[in-house]
Order: sequence, then C-alpha cells, then structure tokens
Amino acid sequence: MPVSETVKNALSSSSMIRKMFEEGAALKKTHGIENVFDFSLGNPDLEPPVSFKETLKKLVFEDAPGSHGYMPNAGFNEVREAAARKVSRDHKVEIGADGVIMSVGAAGALNSVLKAILNPDDEVIVAKPFFMEYRPYALNHGGRLVEVASAPDFNLDVEAVKAALSLKTAAVLINSPNNPTGRVYPAKTIAELSRVLLEHGEACGRFPYLIADEPYREIVYGGVSVPPILSAYPHSIAATSFSKSLSLPGERIGYIAVSPKACDRENLLAGIIYATRTLGFVNAPALMQRCVAAVMDEKADVSVYEKRRDAFKKTLSDSSLDFVEPEGAFYIFARVPSKNGATGDDAAFSAHLKKHLILGVPGSSFGAKGWIRFAYCVSEKTILNSADAFKKAVSSFLP
Amino acid sequence: MPVSETVKNALSSSSMIRKMFEEGAALKKTHGIENVFDFSLGNPDLEPPVSFKETLKKLVFEDAPGSHGYMPNAGFNEVREAAARKVSRDHKVEIGADGVIMSVGAAGALNSVLKAILNPDDEVIVAKPFFMEYRPYALNHGGRLVEVASAPDFNLDVEAVKAALSLKTAAVLINSPNNPTGRVYPAKTIAELSRVLLEHGEACGRFPYLIADEPYREIVYGGVSVPPILSAYPHSIAATSFSKSLSLPGERIGYIAVSPKACDRENLLAGIIYATRTLGFVNAPALMQRCVAAVMDEKADVSVYEKRRDAFKKTLSDSSLDFVEPEGAFYIFARVPSKNGATGDDAAFSAHLKKHLILGVPGSSFGAKGWIRFAYCVSEKTILNSADAFKKAVSSFLP
Repeated sequence: MPVSETVKNALSSSSMIRKMFEEGAALKKTHGIENVFDFSLGNPDLEPPVSFKETLKKLVFEDAPGSHGYMPNAGFNEVREAAARKVSRDHKVEIGADGVIMSVGAAGALNSVLKAILNPDDEVIVAKPFFMEYRPYALNHGGRLVEVASAPDFNLDVEAVKAALSLKTAAVLINSPNNPTGRVYPAKTIAELSRVLLEHGEACGRFPYLIADEPYREIVYGGVSVPPILSAYPHSIAATSFSKSLSLPGERIGYIAVSPKACDRENLLAGIIYATRTLGFVNAPALMQRCVAAVMDEKADVSVYEKRRDAFKKTLSDSSLDFVEPEGAFYIFARVPSKNGATGDDAAFSAHLKKHLILGVPGSSFGAKGWIRFAYCVSEKTILNSADAFKKAVSSFLP
Repeated sequence: MPVSETVKNALSSSSMIRKMFEEGAALKKTHGIENVFDFSLGNPDLEPPVSFKETLKKLVFEDAPGSHGYMPNAGFNEVREAAARKVSRDHKVEIGADGVIMSVGAAGALNSVLKAILNPDDEVIVAKPFFMEYRPYALNHGGRLVEVASAPDFNLDVEAVKAALSLKTAAVLINSPNNPTGRVYPAKTIAELSRVLLEHGEACGRFPYLIADEPYREIVYGGVSVPPILSAYPHSIAATSFSKSLSLPGERIGYIAVSPKACDRENLLAGIIYATRTLGFVNAPALMQRCVAAVMDEKADVSVYEKRRDAFKKTLSDSSLDFVEPEGAFYIFARVPSKNGATGDDAAFSAHLKKHLILGVPGSSFGAKGWIRFAYCVSEKTILNSADAFKKAVSSFLP
C-alpha cells in the first residue's frame, strides 16, 4: 500500500473533474478548438498588463547581483512594504511591512495560514458553494471544514455562520468576490459577521480568525466595491494573489496580510512564516516578488471581463437559464432547469451540455447541487458563438 | 490559543538558530561586514550562469502568449521532457516526461512526495546528521522521522538502516552529497542499501520508497561522482532543485523523478501531482520552468567552490581542527575540540567562535553533537581572512 490512503481516496473522488478536462481536450481534438465552448477553467486568457511586462524586462536587464538568491522567508522587505501600502488602502487600516508575508499564490497563502492556526480537529467554517480546494487545504493541517448554507441570493448567511460556531472554530473562511457565484459580500454583511464573531469570542474565550480569500478583489463590475475586511474585524487575515488581477496564475505570487489588532499577532506572523518555510514554499519566487512590487496597483482590464459578462448574461437569458447576477470575478452561476421547483440534476445537465460542446462545472463540485458554473475568462467570440448551442441544449434538456 | 500548539512549540525550539542569525546581523553592524566570518548559511554567492541569464532575457523578450498562465499541475510538458532527459542520464535509467513532476524547489518536492506516501504514524528513516527541515516535513503529513547513526566516516550505515526497518517504514530518505557533512555515498553503499530494502520488502510485503534528496548532485570535487539512485533500487524517487547548481535558491524551482519500476507508480505520480496541487504549490513557477529547461545541463562553476574548499581545509588544518573530507556540496563539518576523546560541546564552541567573529552552525542542529558546520559558499577572501581568527579561537577554547 504505497500511496497514502487519504491521497488514494482523494484521487478517486477528484477523478470526475479530471475526466471532464480530458474529455474536453478530446472534444477539441475531434471537433476543432473553435467549435468547443469551454467555460470550465478559471485560467485568465488576458495577457498581463504592459507595465508588468516592461518591469519584468527592466529587472531582467538590470540583473542586480543576488536577485535570484535567498531573502528572508517572509519576502524582500521593500516588496512587503509595497504590499502593505496597497493592503492599507484596500482594507482601510494602517499596516506595515511586518504585517505582510509574501506567498506562493493564494493557495500557498491559505495553506500557510491554516497550518499556523489549526489544532487537531479544529473547524473552519465555509459557506456553500465554495472553491473545492478549501477542503483538502483544511485536511492537510489536521482541521476540517464545516459547511453552512448561504442566503438564497448567495450572500453570506451570518445566522448560519453563527449557528455553526463552537469552541472548535479556528476560523471562518470567506471568498468575495465569490468563486463560483460571482457575489460580493456587502459591508453590512461583513459588519454583522464581525459582531457575531466578537460576541462568540467574548462569550467562549476563543475568537475565530476571519480569513478573507480575495484573489478577485480587483475584478468587480458596475460600481460594486469589495468592502475592507481587516478594519472590520480585529482578528482577520487577508490572503490574495496576483494570478487574476495581473493574469499571472502560473507564476505563483501572492501575499498574506494580518490585521494589526489580531489576537496573538506576533506568534501568528511568526507561525505563518514558519509554515511558509517548512511546508516547502520557503519563500515566494524572488523575481516575481520584485516585479509585482513595482506594479502593485495595476490590474487586469476589467472592462474586457465586463463585456464578456454582459454577453454571457444575454446568452443565458436568451436560452431561458436563470443565473445569479455576477458582481465580480469571472464566473456566472446558473440554475439547472428542473420540473416543479425540484433541484435540477447538475451532473446530467453538464453531460447534456457537453453533447452540445459546452463545458461547465457542475455545482455539486462546489457544494451546490442544482447549479452549474461557467467561467468567462475566454474570448467574447466564444461566448457569442455559444448562444445557439445553449438554446438548443436548454430546450432539449427536459423532456 | 490562536496559534497551533505544534507551531508554537516549533517556534520556541527553532528560535536558537534565528537568534544566531540575528546576532550575526548585529555583529556585522558593529564590526563591519568584512570583519565578520559568516559561514552559517547555505546561500550560494555565485551568480547564475551566463547562459541562464541570456535565456531569461530571451524568454522575457519573446513574451510568448500565455507564458505566465496555468499549465498542467505537473508542469509544462516540454520542461518535463528536458528534465527527464537529464534524469535519465544522471540515474542511468529510461524515464519519460510522465515520470517527472516540476516542483517548487527541493523543499516543495519533498513535501509533495511525503504527503503522497505517508499514512498516519508512518516512519521515514534518516541518517544523522541530516538537514534539520526533514523533521517538520515528515510531521506535516502525519509521519515521523526515525533517526539512525551514520558510519564513523559519515558514510551511510546500511546495517543501522536495516535495524530500523519495520512495517511502518514508508521511506528511507538520503541526502548525498550530504548537508552538513559533504560526504557522497558511494555506489557500493547504495547497492547494499538496495539489497537490504528489497529483502525487507520481500519478507514483510512493504517495500520502502528510497527518496534521494539531491540538490548538490552537481557540486562534487576531485573526480568524485554521485552514483545513480533510480537504476539502483526500483522503488526510488529523486527530488532536486536548481537552487545550488544554478544559484537560484530564491526562485523555487526543482523537480521530482520517479523510477519507472516504482511500486504503484501511476498512483504514486498522480498522488504527488495531487499533493503539489492541494498543498498550495499548484505548479512550479512558469517562467523559471521554461528557463531551466533551456539550460538543464548548465551548472555552477564548481572549480570556484573547490578552491574555497581547499582554502577552508587549510584554514581548519592550520588551526588544528579535525574535519570530514568534503567530497561535495559546500559544507565542511568539523569536530569540536574536546578533552580525552569526550564529545565536544558544540553550542559552547559556536558561542566561543562568535566572540572571534566566526559564525558556524552547531552540529546538534543536525543531530550530531560535538560537531560544527561551516558553509563555504562565500568569497575565498572571507575564508582566507578568517585563518587568524580560527587559530586564536581554537587555541583559546579549551583551558
């Protein structure tokens, strides 16, 4: 029995999605890449901004001695300073370089944070639907997810979070703008959440950390803005990456920011740095650290995503599919058609769409049966061209 | 109690070394950087080879679309192919791209491998002295280290490994050229180890994996060569990085190679890829992957390290310190002076050297009391200039 039991089980349960990707590749081979409408993956097709590319060239040509060498595990100090300035603005809080730790993307950030805070069997509360990788992230470090329902409009249901709190609650993990729904939690909801967490902490003596996973903070539409977290609740931690805002998902660069008022702040920061080192990240990649520091305030051209979003909304409306109004990120979450208000069969619908060469991820993969996620970080042409296929697929789904 | 108990304990036990680094920085501030002989860190001071830098410039200027985007979690296929060609030569085995997984350095590689294979309370055998990070790496994934003694000359003691084998043994982890001793395990030793592991597996039904952590494979002196591992034992895995051979420790780029004959090979590879994804590495950094692929066979100028090694050997000999003949890596492991053959006090000796502005890491940090490690990835001048300080320090250590 050479492979670990946990990993073996995980492999068999995650094989469904891998199978979908493989089938997608096979479909493209058979039908031609332009005839397959692949909305399955959150891999931004936009190129990084010109300023990023120019900075990268400049740094590579300057070729400063030691620029590919070790630095402190938390990152170059000047890079942490630049990130601290941004996070101070985003979160309406005063934070210095010592409150920021550069990370190997948001996935690395979340693993380092969870390793630092989880005791065996500790719980992390998440609202369904959620990014499916959170489950292994918590299990990696001896914790487990406690899944609560969202409000019907997919806003955070603070009462549901409250009902799930216990002495075992190490953290509440939120993701806004949300993958897969595209919802942005409003400031009022965050304030309510903060009040509930503070009351819980005062009553039982353990204040849960609030972890905000926010790689999509920059990608919002129509005047929506993502409210600050670090100033809204003292024991809060933001984890983010430049994967989506600068279209750099392959480079694995992000950061962690800890509220200045967080409980046990010094140990928490030292613990996250220790976790970054010993989980094998060691440090965020050196060249990319320096590169993002110079373009900290750049972002993807959100107007491009907004046009695609609008095209996708029209495509879905025209084919009579209901969906959640997408306020941010680049996902649209649609309700699977069903009879008499029953929960739709998302696996069957996904399979049916595939026959029409449309690829989307069943909501069950995010803990939301009866829904399906489409990623619109693809060309507008692909979205527009899919309109007929959507109409045919939806009209022929229910007998 | 917000920070995890395990991490809190680890922070207090690792504070000794952090304290040493901080004291070193303080010493440099007080006495001037050129008057402090800092042999504490394995951070190569050589610049990456010119071919690496030229390739990096070329790739950045070509600016291929999608070059900072996602690729399969195991890495770009052409990069895996290039690494497979190198590993096939190094390990005298035929291995294809599917047998290689690109990693976030060797530290990321080892964590991914250990997560993939360890069941709760499984054991990983290591020979003392060893790189101190192995302990948290095993603990991260529910396993634990079983530490065995080395031979008196710091070669691997295969009988000691044999005595430690049990049904709980998931892996034997070797590191050759060794940090901290500089020893290279000869082919004969590897063959004996292979025989012992095969006999054990045949007898009990569980074949331990042999994990070779070999970031120093390219850095060897005087005609010594590092024997192949993947062809010597079927259930073997090599983990390596370009940190030392190309002086890129800040960029976190390496790879894992699995023997074609490894037990449960397909699940093992899928499990390591799953671990790479879910531990939060996701993939090795994109630009660096493509860069190392083009200079796979380049290496640091070993002759520079060899000159430093020779200078350090002379420095230690002149000050009457015994040491292990360093065959590879850039560490020299010296015996702490003592009376009547007793085990020397390495903490006291390290503190005493510090008074003479010499920094080295006590052997206890590697599981070897009575020894001290000096890293010679510093300028030859620093080594030569330290000669007088060494003489004075050694002659005044024992009363």
